[in-house]
Amino acid sequence: MKRSNRLVVLTEYFIENPRKHIQLPFFVDLCETTKSSVSEDLDIIDNVFQTQGLGYLERTTGAGGGVKYIPEITDVKSLQFVNELREKLEDPNRILPGGYLYMTDILGNPTIVREIGRIFASRFSKLDIDVVVTVATKGIPLAYAVASFLGVPVVIVRRDPKVTEGSSVSINYVSGSSRKIQTMVLPKRSFDEGSNVCIIDDFMKAGGTINGMINLLSEFDAKVQAIGVLVEAEDEEDERVVTDYTSLIKIANLDMTQKDIQIEPGNFLKDN
Amino acid sequence: MKRSNRLVVLTEYFIENPRKHIQLPFFVDLCETTKSSVSEDLDIIDNVFQTQGLGYLERTTGAGGGVKYIPEITDVKSLQFVNELREKLEDPNRILPGGYLYMTDILGNPTIVREIGRIFASRFSKLDIDVVVTVATKGIPLAYAVASFLGVPVVIVRRDPKVTEGSSVSINYVSGSSRKIQTMVLPKRSFDEGSNVCIIDDFMKAGGTINGMINLLSEFDAKVQAIGVLVEAEDEEDERVVTDYTSLIKIANLDMTQKDIQIEPGNFLKDN
Repeated sequence: MKRSNRLVVLTEYFIENPRKHIQLPFFVDLCETTKSSVSEDLDIIDNVFQTQGLGYLERTTGAGGGVKYIPEITDVKSLQFVNELREKLEDPNRILPGGYLYMTDILGNPTIVREIGRIFASRFSKLDIDVVVTVATKGIPLAYAVASFLGVPVVIVRRDPKVTEGSSVSINYVSGSSRKIQTMVLPKRSFDEGSNVCIIDDFMKAGGTINGMINLLSEFDAKVQAIGVLVEAEDEEDERVVTDYTSLIKIANLDMTQKDIQIEPGNFLKDN
Repeated sequence: MKRSNRLVVLTEYFIENPRKHIQLPFFVDLCETTKSSVSEDLDIIDNVFQTQGLGYLERTTGAGGGVKYIPEITDVKSLQFVNELREKLEDPNRILPGGYLYMTDILGNPTIVREIGRIFASRFSKLDIDVVVTVATKGIPLAYAVASFLGVPVVIVRRDPKVTEGSSVSINYVSGSSRKIQTMVLPKRSFDEGSNVCIIDDFMKAGGTINGMINLLSEFDAKVQAIGVLVEAEDEEDERVVTDYTSLIKIANLDMTQKDIQIEPGNFLKDN
């Protein structure tokens, strides 16, 4: 295969298989070429990925050595994306009763969802996450987007047990905003004990739901390494039960009667 | 930018933006090059995509002309993937009460889910779909995977209305398997009337749930152009209320007492 063709094949493979460790002989076979040619191809791809702010190729030498594509996004590009999202959300027609924001259209757009996933995965890139956990329903697409860039599976916490999931572990928790007692369920075979977990959700007010997830995960001896929320509500510092999290967007002010809403970037650039 | 760099940039862009119409001047700017160079690059990429069974570039000439990446997967590759999935599912430990199969681990794997999405999107490639619709919860990741390859949004039907979605339309329907009356809800602002819809779900027994979705969608004057289910249960021909669908996998026999299960490919290669 000629270099020009190899570059297309390899680039496609990396984009579709982030964080997958690949030994060079695999590419040598795939492209019917030599090891030194593949090595030169990887230099080119690594260079373009870095210049374009798409991440980089991590290469290891020696027996079992190979290459892995680590997707990342630059702070400048993240902020630009978040600002575009902010403008979309800062529409008074989005205000719903109870201080919620209508975001269903935004969460229904796979391109936007994938970009959100890229930003969180980029922030949590160094944390050695084994699994992404979310709670049904709205966090699910975001969780898959993050997981696909981290190259790990998704586990979904449910509000109700389902026959299609076998035996399960459940806890009761108090919802921060409504003060109601609710239930959360996770199938027993969800994941290995001691897994490193990243929690993803779409919206956080007081944090009761996320706190419930943390408690449920402790039943599996899981280690919560990161918490990512797309939108955090107005400051509720006295009430907030979760403090260590990464948010992309923050509702700075939401006045239902005046139909006024102000949105600012979350804390995602402050953390690391 | 040199050709080798341009090929990496353009390939990445196409993979991340399937079915997006792009005019050549955009690429001329992005790659700081000439129109004739971009045109040659597109020839190379189109050729590799076709040879590798990844789809093709659709090019239009004249004013407003440009290029669009149409992802596809060959029948051989689809069948190979479905057979691998079959082997995973043909494990007696997956049998759950009621003739269900434990698939949570498979649906939790973003790579597998994306590949399923690629196959459905490939089957429905010519249908001019505007939106993918699914019902909470298990179909959600599959729906996003299909939608991302079709370049369209996802709309999620819920079992219960949520405050965060504004006013909504609901219907009652009879679940085919449990014969219970259930409710389905869709926010009013979900999509334009007359949209071309593709329904995606993970599992179909008698088809009551999908039939419910069809009825709900008729309230929006939506045209159901395609129905895709990952797994269809054993033949229940007398009871099945949905007949025109595409399935990847079919449970041929499931014997709970003998803990025996036989799985075969669905009808996905028979349809077109």
